[in-house]
Amino acid sequence: MQLGMIGLGRMGSNLVRRLMRHGHQCVVHDIQPAAIEALHHEGATGAASLDEMLSLLPAPRILWLMMPAAAVDTTLADLVPRLSPGDIVIDGGNSFYRDDIRRSVALREKGVHFIDVGTSGGIAGLERGYCLMVGGEADIARYLTPIFAALTPGAPASPGRETGSDVPGPESGYLYCGLHGAGHFVKMIHNGIEYGMMAAYAEGMNILKHANIGMRQHEVSAEITPLPHPEYYQYDFNLPDIAEVWRHGSVIDSWLLEKIAGVLRTDPALETFPGHVADSGEGRWTIATAIDEGVPAPVLSAALYARFSSRGQGVFADQLLSAMRYAFGGHVDAGPPAKSRNA
Amino acid sequence: MQLGMIGLGRMGSNLVRRLMRHGHQCVVHDIQPAAIEALHHEGATGAASLDEMLSLLPAPRILWLMMPAAAVDTTLADLVPRLSPGDIVIDGGNSFYRDDIRRSVALREKGVHFIDVGTSGGIAGLERGYCLMVGGEADIARYLTPIFAALTPGAPASPGRETGSDVPGPESGYLYCGLHGAGHFVKMIHNGIEYGMMAAYAEGMNILKHANIGMRQHEVSAEITPLPHPEYYQYDFNLPDIAEVWRHGSVIDSWLLEKIAGVLRTDPALETFPGHVADSGEGRWTIATAIDEGVPAPVLSAALYARFSSRGQGVFADQLLSAMRYAFGGHVDAGPPAKSRNA
Amino acid sequence: MQLGMIGLGRMGSNLVRRLMRHGHQCVVHDIQPAAIEALHHEGATGAASLDEMLSLLPAPRILWLMMPAAAVDTTLADLVPRLSPGDIVIDGGNSFYRDDIRRSVALREKGVHFIDVGTSGGIAGLERGYCLMVGGEADIARYLTPIFAALTPGAPASPGRETGSDVPGPESGYLYCGLHGAGHFVKMIHNGIEYGMMAAYAEGMNILKHANIGMRQHEVSAEITPLPHPEYYQYDFNLPDIAEVWRHGSVIDSWLLEKIAGVLRTDPALETFPGHVADSGEGRWTIATAIDEGVPAPVLSAALYARFSSRGQGVFADQLLSAMRYAFGGHVDAGPPAKSRNA
Amino acid sequence: MQLGMIGLGRMGSNLVRRLMRHGHQCVVHDIQPAAIEALHHEGATGAASLDEMLSLLPAPRILWLMMPAAAVDTTLADLVPRLSPGDIVIDGGNSFYRDDIRRSVALREKGVHFIDVGTSGGIAGLERGYCLMVGGEADIARYLTPIFAALTPGAPASPGRETGSDVPGPESGYLYCGLHGAGHFVKMIHNGIEYGMMAAYAEGMNILKHANIGMRQHEVSAEITPLPHPEYYQYDFNLPDIAEVWRHGSVIDSWLLEKIAGVLRTDPALETFPGHVADSGEGRWTIATAIDEGVPAPVLSAALYARFSSRGQGVFADQLLSAMRYAFGGHVDAGPPAKSRNA
Repeated sequence: MQLGMIGLGRMGSNLVRRLMRHGHQCVVHDIQPAAIEALHHEGATGAASLDEMLSLLPAPRILWLMMPAAAVDTTLADLVPRLSPGDIVIDGGNSFYRDDIRRSVALREKGVHFIDVGTSGGIAGLERGYCLMVGGEADIARYLTPIFAALTPGAPASPGRETGSDVPGPESGYLYCGLHGAGHFVKMIHNGIEYGMMAAYAEGMNILKHANIGMRQHEVSAEITPLPHPEYYQYDFNLPDIAEVWRHGSVIDSWLLEKIAGVLRTDPALETFPGHVADSGEGRWTIATAIDEGVPAPVLSAALYARFSSRGQGVFADQLLSAMRYAFGGHVDAGPPAKSRNA
Repeated sequence: MQLGMIGLGRMGSNLVRRLMRHGHQCVVHDIQPAAIEALHHEGATGAASLDEMLSLLPAPRILWLMMPAAAVDTTLADLVPRLSPGDIVIDGGNSFYRDDIRRSVALREKGVHFIDVGTSGGIAGLERGYCLMVGGEADIARYLTPIFAALTPGAPASPGRETGSDVPGPESGYLYCGLHGAGHFVKMIHNGIEYGMMAAYAEGMNILKHANIGMRQHEVSAEITPLPHPEYYQYDFNLPDIAEVWRHGSVIDSWLLEKIAGVLRTDPALETFPGHVADSGEGRWTIATAIDEGVPAPVLSAALYARFSSRGQGVFADQLLSAMRYAFGGHVDAGPPAKSRNA
Repeated sequence: MQLGMIGLGRMGSNLVRRLMRHGHQCVVHDIQPAAIEALHHEGATGAASLDEMLSLLPAPRILWLMMPAAAVDTTLADLVPRLSPGDIVIDGGNSFYRDDIRRSVALREKGVHFIDVGTSGGIAGLERGYCLMVGGEADIARYLTPIFAALTPGAPASPGRETGSDVPGPESGYLYCGLHGAGHFVKMIHNGIEYGMMAAYAEGMNILKHANIGMRQHEVSAEITPLPHPEYYQYDFNLPDIAEVWRHGSVIDSWLLEKIAGVLRTDPALETFPGHVADSGEGRWTIATAIDEGVPAPVLSAALYARFSSRGQGVFADQLLSAMRYAFGGHVDAGPPAKSRNA
Repeated sequence: MQLGMIGLGRMGSNLVRRLMRHGHQCVVHDIQPAAIEALHHEGATGAASLDEMLSLLPAPRILWLMMPAAAVDTTLADLVPRLSPGDIVIDGGNSFYRDDIRRSVALREKGVHFIDVGTSGGIAGLERGYCLMVGGEADIARYLTPIFAALTPGAPASPGRETGSDVPGPESGYLYCGLHGAGHFVKMIHNGIEYGMMAAYAEGMNILKHANIGMRQHEVSAEITPLPHPEYYQYDFNLPDIAEVWRHGSVIDSWLLEKIAGVLRTDPALETFPGHVADSGEGRWTIATAIDEGVPAPVLSAALYARFSSRGQGVFADQLLSAMRYAFGGHVDAGPPAKSRNA
């Protein structure tokens, strides 16, 4: 099929590469001309503008948006007036599913179809294939099957599942999830779980890292509890080896653990990583959704808050704790001034 | 090698089976004669008593304990007086690593070696191999290499890692972690992480399960917030398919997710599971260790607390919340009497 | 002054009573005629309809809404077309502050002023006075000073604060917080903190309640960790006395603790409280706001989630945990079927 | 009565002062001679050594220890060999209740009585009186009534409680809680709750502090979610006034809030507080106890973890999160190197 890709960051560029490997023809556009140029050299057709892109695609046109959630509305404002009835807009980025619902209504008024695709796989997806979670009109999703089939791993069926139908099943890495927003809803929860898993590994590794604290001297103070049994904390653990061994036969083996083992092998002390952890929306939306539904999500919330704290967003609360301790007990917490930490 | 296995539950029996498949000879004992009988039929030598077991093994004897953590001290009290200098006791269960340190000291006085082995893999380990995390004297651990090699997956080396040495590396599923307690320490953290991962999946799936609440009617009340936008909660998601699709190309693919997909395929509504979730010690010890070290573990703690709450252990706190609401605001929380829930 | 009160629940009725005690004249309306009748007997002027209420009040009319957040828009839809430029609408309930911003814009188009008032104090406010957090146009808020002064405790100034100005200061229980929504924003956070404090007391009391578990028999099992030191859990604490003693000289003394001591004195086992704890919106909005701001709120979130869990909203997650344990380890969690708990 | 006070920090010195005001005679000792000298000038009898202290007190001697939990065993090792049967040792500090049980057994062998006293009140206790939670032999506790009565607020009885008995009741700020360790157990939970309450206020205030983020510019990025509605975050709240107004008529009024209002009045930006918050043991023990009992304590745990994180104890976990993001998605988290934050 022929497809226009708008947004050529890491993810967009790799999607184009994988589509071309499977015989699809791609017209590509980005606000950075260099990104267009790079893919042009790999066989894609570059389009310097949205108008040029639209003129290069046959009707009905298939347009895949791959950009930060915050840029989608601006792009659609430029794009939609130029579209024709029957055209299909796919948002494959990490948009909030509620925006899909709103946008699908606006596009439907123009006769344009809207499909939301949650796309997981990261930079490995180019070789491994992507996991696709799709929402929108079922027949439009079905029409796009060749595109989706090229992007997914297309793994053989799991035991107990029927295959042979022409629509790929979940064991191929593709799932039609439901009406507009359903794909991004499932992807949102996917990322919420991802945050929780990442935090579980990170907390566990941090405990292992500190298992040698009994070797250090501690002084008696009324302010900080001394370690009651230093003899229990005399281990200098080899974290890269531990991550590696867990990959083989353990209950906590995962694809994320493979990445952890790899990164620890290269930089065991993680000195190249500042530890101010960004978050890109889905974690927040997962919590907002849990709260709307009235269901508890303590693990996923704690994972999100750890990221906020890592960026210094809790410092004023910490200062107020110190201030209370001083006010009621005369306790003086030591340390550098908070200002410099907060900056 | 020849090895005596004491404790023939699910794990102990399967360890014996895998050892025998790799040519090791096993003498087996359990407090349940039927368990001994079953393995006897599969080729193991049954021992009706500890004395019989010890008489059937060559010196130095290798004894593997595989039992609940709470039963180890009682068993050692029976066993140790019967041992000879040079004998080796392996605790392959889920003991607290601090007990290993204490026990290794006591056994050393008798000239007996003590090895702690964290064993992960569950019931799949029989076919897949087990992930082994080992602590104790390094030369004793090395002496036991044939035993450990039989139990681990023995996977080929990861890229970038040397192989060829006679001591198996972490890429085979085996790791010598350090002195006494190191194996169970690493296994403890492994299970702490496991609790966190399990809770991350469970919370995410629960949010997906409730994504249809907008279809139900809600009345206006001052006590419970109404759902502000029912139109955003109109999805009836297919949870088995979602678990399955995430296994193919996604960032959150894992061995646990494979189990989740399997169990949801069989029983999508999970009606056969009561949801009173047990915990077997490592989760608790992980938190106790984090607190001793003074490192934050909010995700792993939340995962543990969810299990406590699932067993009704927070009901009195809930009742006190209702009581406060009544006392300051006159609010009356509805529902069946707490007694029946708590029972 | 003359004021119309719409909504005569516990809070609305008591506000009217306190206003009348301070010499204000109140016209009252509710969808329940009995509620109007009751206050009529206490000296208020009953109004059977909004039209009647408006005809009984001098211009500019002051109308105080006191109702569930979910009922405000419906009431405004009836009320606003009947208002005249210069009239003032006060929302003293627990509305979301973002709705205040929206409503203030809509009312301004009609020349009607909108004031949001966060009102804290519960049923004790009638005697003790209410804490008022006010948002909206500053001059309109100032105009309403006699109303607010009647409702607040009007306590004497704290040391170090100037008094004597004609606008009451925060030491009187009144604060002008800022433009539209500011009052309800501050009240929202107040309630978020309230949830956290309530949960802190409830968790602590629950730990005290279980301090006697060492007296009960525990069996050895691989599924549930045994209590390692029963000798440390032999206390039968007197919870009513503990709540009472903390009120006298301790760091955790509070008005909430006074309520706790009172309710425990009457019903030490809290048998009359089912423990399905409602939540009325502010706790949820507090978390949503923290997440928008990107600041951590783990304590306030945990408090909210405990309420969700108390209402059975986490049961499917618990079931999935049991299902995973069964799938990877063959573990069988005991207990009654989840269905009956969930109902 | 005559009493020897060992340990003259903030708490110990003030206890002596209050006892002397109520007519008790105090012999005082500390490892800092200056501390002895200061109280000597206020009327206490200084003792340069334990031997001197013991020689100055009549039999049975009453000795009150007021020192960091980690110093108690060392002090007892010096003190106990010098004691006589019938002497009474009081530990009024923040010891772990399990240490009380152990110590009471050791002292009983010498015929010495041991009493544990949880003492709350901070630096305000000198004027306000202390809240005392007492454990040990009931008749020894009763014998010490004049001491305890002098230290507590001795407030008049609450409605519904009998008074007039010679043993002070909880409404006076005194409670006999049970056998050895009971006093420190109740104090431990008191402090656990204190941590939770402090964190609830701190988180709430932090959300208020960030309510103006909509005024700042945000750029579009795939790494950090933009604020979806800046118009909702335009508030510059006056935190000192908010803390003050909540003290008057609100549900969250408390003694801690009084301290918060005071400290914010003096330093609204809290610039003098570094925000590395210490913890002195009880918070940790509260969580360890909850876990032993198998009861959920998510709020109290989150409060403790916030303190750990404030001291940089979670930085390695944060770095691992950044490393994972880089490994699977190519994401680069910005910020200064972690080393400098961790130091």
